[in-house]
Amino acid sequence: MTTLIQKTLNQILPVNADDLKKAQKHLDSLTKPPGSLGRLEELARRYAAIKGIDAPSISKKSVFIFAADHGIAREGVSAYPPEVTAQMVQNFLQGGAAINVLAKHAGAEIGVVDIGVNFDFKNCPGLTHKKIAPGTKNMSQGPSMTRQQAEEALQTGIDLAQNSADKGTDVIASGDMGIGNTTPAAAIMSVYSGQSPRQVAGKGTGIDRATLEKKIRLIEQAIKINHPDKKDPIDVLAKVGGFEIGGIAGLILGAAAKRTPVIIDGLISGAGAIIAYGLNPLVKDYIFTSHQSVEPGHAILFKLLDQPPLFDLGMRLGEGTGAVLAMSILEASIKIYLQMATFEKAGVSTQTST
Amino acid sequence: MTTLIQKTLNQILPVNADDLKKAQKHLDSLTKPPGSLGRLEELARRYAAIKGIDAPSISKKSVFIFAADHGIAREGVSAYPPEVTAQMVQNFLQGGAAINVLAKHAGAEIGVVDIGVNFDFKNCPGLTHKKIAPGTKNMSQGPSMTRQQAEEALQTGIDLAQNSADKGTDVIASGDMGIGNTTPAAAIMSVYSGQSPRQVAGKGTGIDRATLEKKIRLIEQAIKINHPDKKDPIDVLAKVGGFEIGGIAGLILGAAAKRTPVIIDGLISGAGAIIAYGLNPLVKDYIFTSHQSVEPGHAILFKLLDQPPLFDLGMRLGEGTGAVLAMSILEASIKIYLQMATFEKAGVSTQTST
Repeated sequence: MTTLIQKTLNQILPVNADDLKKAQKHLDSLTKPPGSLGRLEELARRYAAIKGIDAPSISKKSVFIFAADHGIAREGVSAYPPEVTAQMVQNFLQGGAAINVLAKHAGAEIGVVDIGVNFDFKNCPGLTHKKIAPGTKNMSQGPSMTRQQAEEALQTGIDLAQNSADKGTDVIASGDMGIGNTTPAAAIMSVYSGQSPRQVAGKGTGIDRATLEKKIRLIEQAIKINHPDKKDPIDVLAKVGGFEIGGIAGLILGAAAKRTPVIIDGLISGAGAIIAYGLNPLVKDYIFTSHQSVEPGHAILFKLLDQPPLFDLGMRLGEGTGAVLAMSILEASIKIYLQMATFEKAGVSTQTST
Repeated sequence: MTTLIQKTLNQILPVNADDLKKAQKHLDSLTKPPGSLGRLEELARRYAAIKGIDAPSISKKSVFIFAADHGIAREGVSAYPPEVTAQMVQNFLQGGAAINVLAKHAGAEIGVVDIGVNFDFKNCPGLTHKKIAPGTKNMSQGPSMTRQQAEEALQTGIDLAQNSADKGTDVIASGDMGIGNTTPAAAIMSVYSGQSPRQVAGKGTGIDRATLEKKIRLIEQAIKINHPDKKDPIDVLAKVGGFEIGGIAGLILGAAAKRTPVIIDGLISGAGAIIAYGLNPLVKDYIFTSHQSVEPGHAILFKLLDQPPLFDLGMRLGEGTGAVLAMSILEASIKIYLQMATFEKAGVSTQTST
């Protein structure tokens, strides 16, 4: 492991338990029955404990979309042709994708990162050029990438999160684009959970039964021939992962090291979170889950983080769309924390002893 | 029934099935796999079909908080003393309550309506004065209100929704304030569903087991002595309802008659929705559910409307807090509908035949 990654892992500290208590005490002083805002209070409590209980700021918000191609996509595991990855990157840059609309709605800036797209983006204003290779190798034939490339992907995410935090970003969301990427994500979920590829693989962008069967067989084959070592997250990432999954894992690590909350999107972000968690379980304190994706493998993540999804709207798009919707809910919870009147100030009677 | 209420009921028309299809066709032309935004697409489709598929507007948003007191509260069914209703109305007007913060977050205006608070609000700028009586009677001793008062409550809600729609409000949300009001709401749920008070009653603002037992006994008694007629929603409202529940039922009817989508909050709004649905089941087309409340009786509503909640954040505050959070999600779905690029325009390849 590189010294830089190791240094980041060492910087991650647990959230202060005392601050969590103080944040809840403040929430209990506000004009509402204690706990009556449910998970909004949970969100505000943890966010405040991370960012500072006196004035947790949530003004500057960013979502990073890591885009990459996948060798496995050539096997036809997606409902879309591989060139859609590059086309969608252009769409992000032109502002026409779902993530553009939803990020704007949430007041978040978008960072589009080419971490491994099989297209030469020349003259693309707004694109962050971090291409490691023009797509991974076909994991059903050998490792997706080298160990060095896996570390490079992690480092890319770490750097982006840390630079963003240094520039004053309060909260970061993770997103992805990569035709075929539910296949490596499901493979990672399978390796970590011990559940079979059949249990964790889903229909991605909308494949039929026969394609799903092929996808399952390819995941089984990839795990069989590559022998990913569950105890070595970088090995798992290299053998059955993807560049965007590594980038997201790094983003989570970098955010946690900078005490910056990070909201994760669906299955692909979940696979990144599992890699990050494997490298340092303390990242859990900084991760905020968003939606429950339609993908069956996603559930493994919530169990691991011991944090249920915030909502289930039957979404399966990726890009960070679920994460930015959650960002708006998280922001609402912080406004509750910051803007509501206390019982004392409002002259409202408190609970009678029952 | 008054002529005005009957006229409103007659004005409610079903949403055009053709427009629903056209709205979905538009959604399918946008750069995302068909259906991949899940319930966001459902929301956008119905909202667009209601408001006009070419340019469904969601700029002007309002939430109405109906406040009222309850005779039954004197029996001690809440964790808070009855004077909190009036105190919270003042808090709404001063901007310190959760609904103020969350409505502002959603960009919604707030209308605070005294439809039956046991307090004389003189010199209260911003308050809508529609007091029918200073609280209902104790329903465990006799009817909550007269039939005439029940119709007056409905008419109040109808007028507010229609005036608001006439002034250009695109979408309306319902909210409530009334210490003790989960008791009549649970009674209505019990009468309509045939489920026992024990099955539908919950802990409201946070009562203990003994108080919950008392609450259940009082609901049983109220139903037993008043004989509410399930087939006559106004009778149910009069005998075991509340003024704010009637106001909300009227708000829903008035909105539906004006082809204005209406987002309903938790249990109290749910009881209002059940009264409105009983008067004209076509209101279903205009109702947008928001959150699943902690209150057990709430589930009856989702079954009746055949529309699951959008999210479950363990909230149990009322005021319209869940509805305005949902408003933001609904707005996001409309922005998707209006702002995303089509496959054609963005030059993105469509799904391959699998």
